[in-house]
Amino acid sequence: MNGILSGLRIVEGSAFIAAPMAGMTLAQLGADVIRFDDIKGGLDSDRWPVTKDGQSIYWAGLNKGKRSIAVDLRNPKGRELLTALITAPGDNAGIFSTNMPARGWLAYEELSKKRADLIALNIVGDRHGAANVDYTVNSITGFPLVTGPADHQGPVNNVLPAWDIATAYAAAMSILAAERHRRMTGQGQRIVLPLQDMALAAVSATGYIGEAVVNKVDRPRFGNQIFGTFGRDFRTKDGKYVMVCIFSDRHLDALAKAGSFGDAFARIEKDKGVDLKLEADRWKARAELAAVIEPWVASQNAADVAASLRKAGALWAPYQSFRELSVDNDAVLDNPMFTVLDQPGIGRYPVAASPVQFAAVPREAPRPAPLLGQHTDEILSGVLGLSAAEIGKLHDEKIVAGPR
Amino acid sequence: MNGILSGLRIVEGSAFIAAPMAGMTLAQLGADVIRFDDIKGGLDSDRWPVTKDGQSIYWAGLNKGKRSIAVDLRNPKGRELLTALITAPGDNAGIFSTNMPARGWLAYEELSKKRADLIALNIVGDRHGAANVDYTVNSITGFPLVTGPADHQGPVNNVLPAWDIATAYAAAMSILAAERHRRMTGQGQRIVLPLQDMALAAVSATGYIGEAVVNKVDRPRFGNQIFGTFGRDFRTKDGKYVMVCIFSDRHLDALAKAGSFGDAFARIEKDKGVDLKLEADRWKARAELAAVIEPWVASQNAADVAASLRKAGALWAPYQSFRELSVDNDAVLDNPMFTVLDQPGIGRYPVAASPVQFAAVPREAPRPAPLLGQHTDEILSGVLGLSAAEIGKLHDEKIVAGPR
Repeated sequence: MNGILSGLRIVEGSAFIAAPMAGMTLAQLGADVIRFDDIKGGLDSDRWPVTKDGQSIYWAGLNKGKRSIAVDLRNPKGRELLTALITAPGDNAGIFSTNMPARGWLAYEELSKKRADLIALNIVGDRHGAANVDYTVNSITGFPLVTGPADHQGPVNNVLPAWDIATAYAAAMSILAAERHRRMTGQGQRIVLPLQDMALAAVSATGYIGEAVVNKVDRPRFGNQIFGTFGRDFRTKDGKYVMVCIFSDRHLDALAKAGSFGDAFARIEKDKGVDLKLEADRWKARAELAAVIEPWVASQNAADVAASLRKAGALWAPYQSFRELSVDNDAVLDNPMFTVLDQPGIGRYPVAASPVQFAAVPREAPRPAPLLGQHTDEILSGVLGLSAAEIGKLHDEKIVAGPR
Repeated sequence: MNGILSGLRIVEGSAFIAAPMAGMTLAQLGADVIRFDDIKGGLDSDRWPVTKDGQSIYWAGLNKGKRSIAVDLRNPKGRELLTALITAPGDNAGIFSTNMPARGWLAYEELSKKRADLIALNIVGDRHGAANVDYTVNSITGFPLVTGPADHQGPVNNVLPAWDIATAYAAAMSILAAERHRRMTGQGQRIVLPLQDMALAAVSATGYIGEAVVNKVDRPRFGNQIFGTFGRDFRTKDGKYVMVCIFSDRHLDALAKAGSFGDAFARIEKDKGVDLKLEADRWKARAELAAVIEPWVASQNAADVAASLRKAGALWAPYQSFRELSVDNDAVLDNPMFTVLDQPGIGRYPVAASPVQFAAVPREAPRPAPLLGQHTDEILSGVLGLSAAEIGKLHDEKIVAGPR
């Protein structure tokens, strides 16, 4: 390991998406991330999608590159071991990341008795500590009522767990901010990160609350159109779809060139009295722009549309399925971020490393997710300094377990 | 300012969402974030939503708490000033974040001649450096083809700019990782973060590529249902919607209690031969579960459904519009993350601070976005040490500008 965070150690007690993805993000930057689970597996150990044999592809995706220790969480001796692990000495240790309820033995007050400068990050559902998931958080943001076809009634949920993903990176950022603070002041601390507040802060940042209050409007549903400029999907002759956008003069000119739309665009400008170089005017003329582009896309197969748009340098992209993506040369197969890994129990498939490229260190290739308890013995020995006899006894007493 | 990143200085040359939101995120944690723009304003200075007077609510949302300097970017003397600002000395300075093309005077090679340990983060569209926006990146991920009503044909775009938001936090994280590395080694570096790779890494982490390759399936559209467990929307008597989920035994029991579904749930278990405590079995019995819940929700007004679900401790949430959110007591009005700010030129509305709560430092209240060039003089004087006469001359030569 030679990642940018090499040497940093984070102990993680987690389930679902945000918390394990935070740990995975740090592990892929070279941190030693130790995930602990109950010897029976965590809440998310069998989550879908699974293979035909019931192996969780989901779990494998979110726990790549971590070390796993399996401990009986109900046994006081198991809890003692984990407390020792979380609070183990070292400048780069003493960082605990969790979305388990921070009560009892996992409360900051308890853990920090063993290490005063502990950093403990707790991802919670909302600021009151109530349960929330990406879906319940998203419901209240307003987004589901403006997502989906313009004539649709009712909400449209995101399939993409957007708030979990953002929270994962925010959690990783917060740990580094607190670690910096500790390095400068010697002081540890508890960090609380509510999933709901993450979503609400983003709604605020992107202007939706300001728009609602200041303009006293509820923005209507605009289907697949990008609000305030030009962008939407178009259907090709062979039933594929492309997304076409204009965010700048350059994109306008490139699109005009791709479809020989120069005269038609000039006519729109004249007839509607607009300047298509302005975002607001493109939005005003969106129906007219679409009327020009639609027949051009509809008269050609996707491959030909793609060739013209690519050649002209337009801002566009094809829509594709997950399966098409998985064999997409540029995005996946030839992308150095991806490596075909053999994930034990699941099989071989392309797996992403960190999307961040640091020039000072080579990007670490992705490493498989561990089997549950795969590193139990090496952690007990290497981090806690237990002898082979002591470790054997913990196994005999069923306080710890190796891989199933 | 007493935030966790107090003292850290980041110079930002940015537009749109990901890059300015990264800066805003760090500014809200106490960093001194200086955004520079051309004296005519950046590409995104007038982006929608706007007020009736054309003031950008969008820009205000993404630039909160920063300082603004306005410089003629075409003038070599303006570029010299900004180079000096980006590479200004200080342990906590010399950090540059941008999504402008890192060419010419903004190339890392040029900037690092003035400061060898410069940290420069460049957010790019894809790893080749091609233009991409949230929408084009999302198109290729696969998500638009599984989002939206189950019987819908064609893609459904996210309105929520999920990839921009995740990239913003990843960028903030990356800056802190590189700053830690510099603190330990003395070494600066260039960081490249492609928006497209951010999305692809998340598709990989959440198991979609693995599922496509290993199981050789394209997951179909399941509408508003949560894949692999139980969760979907239900319509109330008064035409509102609620999201109801079951992620654990506790949520199952609470839902049963809220609607007195105990017998009905037991009957489903018997008839279908399933155990509703298992995620996979809830997914198998999702139609039967919905058939029990649907008439119960449909027979009551939203307020009554909410009262029962809340009292029982179910995992649920109401759907609401942005306007309803903006006056939501719990989420916004009583939420200490929000402060009603007067944003100059726009008006008063609730604005979010950082969603992260660090125990060691009080959370900073949100600060308004600056007017373009609001801090030009104080930055030239305070950071670059220019005299009043020198600053006056720069104004006279129209190399810099104050607020319009």
